[in-house]
Amino acid sequence: MRETFHRRALPTDAIAFSSPEGRGLFSEALASAGLNGYFPLAEQFHTQSEPAFCGLGSLVVTLNALSIDPGRSWKGPWRWFAEEMLDCCAPLADIRERGVDVEEFACLARCNGADVEVRRGDVSNLEAWRAALAMAASGEAVVVASYDRAAMGQTGSGHFSPIGGYHARKDLALILDVARFKYPPHWVSAERLWQAMACVDPTTGLARGWIVVRRSAGARITDPGGCCVPEGAI
Amino acid sequence: MRETFHRRALPTDAIAFSSPEGRGLFSEALASAGLNGYFPLAEQFHTQSEPAFCGLGSLVVTLNALSIDPGRSWKGPWRWFAEEMLDCCAPLADIRERGVDVEEFACLARCNGADVEVRRGDVSNLEAWRAALAMAASGEAVVVASYDRAAMGQTGSGHFSPIGGYHARKDLALILDVARFKYPPHWVSAERLWQAMACVDPTTGLARGWIVVRRSAGARITDPGGCCVPEGAI
Repeated sequence: MRETFHRRALPTDAIAFSSPEGRGLFSEALASAGLNGYFPLAEQFHTQSEPAFCGLGSLVVTLNALSIDPGRSWKGPWRWFAEEMLDCCAPLADIRERGVDVEEFACLARCNGADVEVRRGDVSNLEAWRAALAMAASGEAVVVASYDRAAMGQTGSGHFSPIGGYHARKDLALILDVARFKYPPHWVSAERLWQAMACVDPTTGLARGWIVVRRSAGARITDPGGCCVPEGAI
Repeated sequence: MRETFHRRALPTDAIAFSSPEGRGLFSEALASAGLNGYFPLAEQFHTQSEPAFCGLGSLVVTLNALSIDPGRSWKGPWRWFAEEMLDCCAPLADIRERGVDVEEFACLARCNGADVEVRRGDVSNLEAWRAALAMAASGEAVVVASYDRAAMGQTGSGHFSPIGGYHARKDLALILDVARFKYPPHWVSAERLWQAMACVDPTTGLARGWIVVRRSAGARITDPGGCCVPEGAI
């Protein structure tokens, strides 16, 4: 019989959101404007709906937190983003097996009403990452980290999750881990997370990194099928 | 073509979680121990997976927030609660059409490793409700409200959602509304919510109310099918 798990223990250098230390960090960050972006994300923070849907799950949280109208129904009369509606850029059946890479994440975000900037970990630096964390903290944009779990001392490999806040004085990022069946949200060293974003994704040969997502100002309306042509294909 | 919606506007006496006023209430409640129970719920707050699954969605949030191990797999190797796993006490196909009532909610909670107390709104009083809110605020138990949306000036009728915290000085409850495609989390008058819990559910002829849920101390292990016999049937 296959081994099953009810959650996993975080590595010792990650501080769980609900732990006494995590609550203390939360209060400090809240008081120092490190959690202005937390509120809309907390409203939409959810569990990735499939084990390989960390990218889609992070994108669902992001698009709903940005209050983007998908322009098509989810269930009943409600227009709403859920993973199964992100069926473009790559076949959903493939994504269910292998997840998405950073480019596919960006493609899906663009096709669904968001403006996106991709930063590769290997050609960035720690100061740029701290500037992105400050942007996430301010709520000016949603920042999604694409990182290697193993480099963080966690089980697993490539993973996506949104950044919920930044404790600047202690240089700690709050990861809203969408694999909520595995790890709770946690605070981690900004530098360690940056290193984990510089790891190469073996499926693309490119470094992971982070994605800055904003609601598109223009009328980037999804087509009736809810998909679009990836920019690289035009 | 049927009308569709991207969210709904809250009634004017409800204060949205992410609004400037909502953020202020959050900071005040956090500083006065009104949000001790918020943290585990925030980790698991999610969107009900079907339009009629407000009860099941609230229970999924509750069971996962209480760290109850379902004893059976959700997807992949992960043991985790999701709505489609709560297939006992009433047929899931029926629940998809009509939702659950308070007794079915309690039955499902008991069958899945929780201890439950049900309080009917019509035979309770405001002080008992405030005591329940204080319990939710402390994190000693999870409190789920079953109320009539219309009595709150909202569209819709019967609804369930967990209580995320309590601002005692202003007598405001934080509702973590699981219909996140409709309303954001919001602060409401404890008294108005209590009145909405005293409304009669026309399907049962009984008043709505609230449910206090705790992790069961005993070894209430789910059977391999993940179901059990409702207590009333023993």
